[in-house]
Amino acid sequence: MLQIVELLAVISGAIYGVLLARQHKMDFVGVFSLAFIVAFGGGTLRDLFLDRHPLFWIRESHYPIIVFGIAIAAFFILKVPKYSERLLNLPDALGLGFFSIAGADAALDEGTSWFIAAMLGAVTGTFGGVIGDTICNRIPSLFHPSTPLYATCSFVGSWVFILLSQWPVTEKLAAPVAITLIVLFRLAALQRGWKLPALAADAVDGAEARDD
Amino acid sequence: MLQIVELLAVISGAIYGVLLARQHKMDFVGVFSLAFIVAFGGGTLRDLFLDRHPLFWIRESHYPIIVFGIAIAAFFILKVPKYSERLLNLPDALGLGFFSIAGADAALDEGTSWFIAAMLGAVTGTFGGVIGDTICNRIPSLFHPSTPLYATCSFVGSWVFILLSQWPVTEKLAAPVAITLIVLFRLAALQRGWKLPALAADAVDGAEARDD
Amino acid sequence: MLQIVELLAVISGAIYGVLLARQHKMDFVGVFSLAFIVAFGGGTLRDLFLDRHPLFWIRESHYPIIVFGIAIAAFFILKVPKYSERLLNLPDALGLGFFSIAGADAALDEGTSWFIAAMLGAVTGTFGGVIGDTICNRIPSLFHPSTPLYATCSFVGSWVFILLSQWPVTEKLAAPVAITLIVLFRLAALQRGWKLPALAADAVDGAEARDD
Repeated sequence: MLQIVELLAVISGAIYGVLLARQHKMDFVGVFSLAFIVAFGGGTLRDLFLDRHPLFWIRESHYPIIVFGIAIAAFFILKVPKYSERLLNLPDALGLGFFSIAGADAALDEGTSWFIAAMLGAVTGTFGGVIGDTICNRIPSLFHPSTPLYATCSFVGSWVFILLSQWPVTEKLAAPVAITLIVLFRLAALQRGWKLPALAADAVDGAEARDD
Repeated sequence: MLQIVELLAVISGAIYGVLLARQHKMDFVGVFSLAFIVAFGGGTLRDLFLDRHPLFWIRESHYPIIVFGIAIAAFFILKVPKYSERLLNLPDALGLGFFSIAGADAALDEGTSWFIAAMLGAVTGTFGGVIGDTICNRIPSLFHPSTPLYATCSFVGSWVFILLSQWPVTEKLAAPVAITLIVLFRLAALQRGWKLPALAADAVDGAEARDD
Repeated sequence: MLQIVELLAVISGAIYGVLLARQHKMDFVGVFSLAFIVAFGGGTLRDLFLDRHPLFWIRESHYPIIVFGIAIAAFFILKVPKYSERLLNLPDALGLGFFSIAGADAALDEGTSWFIAAMLGAVTGTFGGVIGDTICNRIPSLFHPSTPLYATCSFVGSWVFILLSQWPVTEKLAAPVAITLIVLFRLAALQRGWKLPALAADAVDGAEARDD
C-alpha cells in the first residue's frame, strides 16, 4: 500500500516537473532534469540534512529510471488535455501526504525535535517544487498568497503524525490518519480556494510612498 | 557572550529574510522559508561541506522556533519604520562577524587549509543571503559593485582569526579580535561607501560593439 | 596525464564562471564566487550525494587558490578577444569529459546502479554551469534546445565508460576511450550544430489558445 503511494508521489512530482519544463520549451535534458529535481529534490534535502545515506533515489534505484521513462513519454504526448492539471490534483495530494509523513518519520528516527520533524516533513513534501521553480527563474509559487494551502497542509499533517506516534495506542494509526488528513485538507483547500494572507506590504509601501 | 552574539546573528538573518519576503508580497510560508534560509543557509552549507552533523539548527533546536516566532511577528508589524534598515546595520554586522568566525573555526577544526577555512568563513557569513536572493529571482546583491564591502570584511576577518589562532599567546584573543574587526570594517564600509570595483565590462562591451 | 586534464577542467570551469560574472558586471566577490561555483559545483553535488568526504576541493586544496588567481587575473584582462569563446571550446570539452568520467567512476566505487552512475557522471560534468546560470537569474542554457549537445555527450560517454569497465580486458581502456569520445562528440556537436529537439510546446500552446 505505502509502496504504491510512494510510487504515485514520485510519478506526480515527475509530471509536475515535465509540465514546468514544457512551459519553458526545454529539450530532453531540461525535461528530465526538472522531472528529477521536482520528484527527488525535497527528499534529497531531507536526507542530506539528516545525513541519511544512501539517498533514497540511490537506494531505490528504479525510481530514476521511472522518471526517465516519464520524461521520454512526454515527447510523444503532443497535446496536453486541458483538464489534465485537475487530473493531477489527486496524485499530487497523495504525493504531498506521503512525502511529508516519510520526511517527518525520518526526522523523528534521527532524534530531532518535534518542530524540526514537522518542518522537515514540509520540506520533503514541497521543496522539490521550490527548487524547480527557482531553476525556472520563477519565485516559488508555494511562497505566494495566490496559491491554495499546500505547505500548510503538509506542516499540520506532520504535526498530527508526530503527536499520534507518541502513544502506543495510536502509533500504528499515525501514518494513515496523517496522510489522509493531508490529502483531504489539500483537496479541500483547492476546492474552496483556501489561502494564506499576504504580508501587508501594500500598506507599508503606501506609507513609504507618502513619507518620501 | 558568544551565545548572545550567535542569537543576534540568527535573529538579524531572519529579519533580513522577512524584509526580502515582504518586498515580494509573500504569504506566511514564504516569509518563514526565507527567514529560515537567510538565517541558516550559510551555516548549513558549511556543515554539509565539512560533513558536520547534526546541522547546527538541528542541534540548537530552539533556533528554528525563534525564527518561526519572528515570521509570525512580521504579520503584526504593519508599518516598517523608515530608519529600520539602518537599525539593522549593527546586528547584521555582528551576525556577519560571528557567523564568519564560527565558520572559519569549524573548518580549522576539520583540518582544512587556511585558504579554505577563510573561504568557508565568508560562505557561512554571507551565503544565506545569496540563496535568499537567488530564490527571490534576484542576482545576489553581494556580487554587485554597488554594494558596500560585505563578503570582503568577512574574508579579511577570517584570515585575521586564522593567523591569530596559530600562536598560543594570541589564540584566546583570536575570536573577539576578529569579530570586532569584521563589525567595525563592515560599519565603516557602510558609512564611507567603500565598494569593490566592477569587472571592466563596459570597456569590453564597447570594444565588442565597435568590432561587430 | 589525468592530473593535467583535471586541472584543465577546473581552469575551464573557472573561466566560464568569470565570463558569466563579466556579463553581469559583478565585482570581485561575484567573479570569484561564480568561478568557484561553476568549477566545483557539479563535483560538490556528486560528493554530497555519495557522501564522499572531504569534498574534492577541500582535499585538493590548491584548486580553490588557482580559481582565486584566475578571478584576480580577470581584472587585468580588460578586453576579451572575440575569438576567446571558441578558444575555450577545447578545454571546456576536455573538462566535460574528465569531470563526467570522474563522476561516473566515483558513483561505481560507491556501488550505485549503472543508470545512477551515468546520471551522476552527467551531473558532475555539467551542474556547475546549471547552478551558475540559476544564480545569474537565467534559465540554465543546458536545458534549452538552442544549445548544442552537452549533457548528452556526457551521459553517453559515461555509459561507454561504465560498460567498458565491466570487463577485465577493456577496464584499463575505459577512462581514456570514454573521455576521448565525450571530447570528440562535444566538438562535433558544436561544429555541426547538433541539438536536441524541444518538447513540442508550440502545438500545445496553440491548441490551448484555440480552445479558450
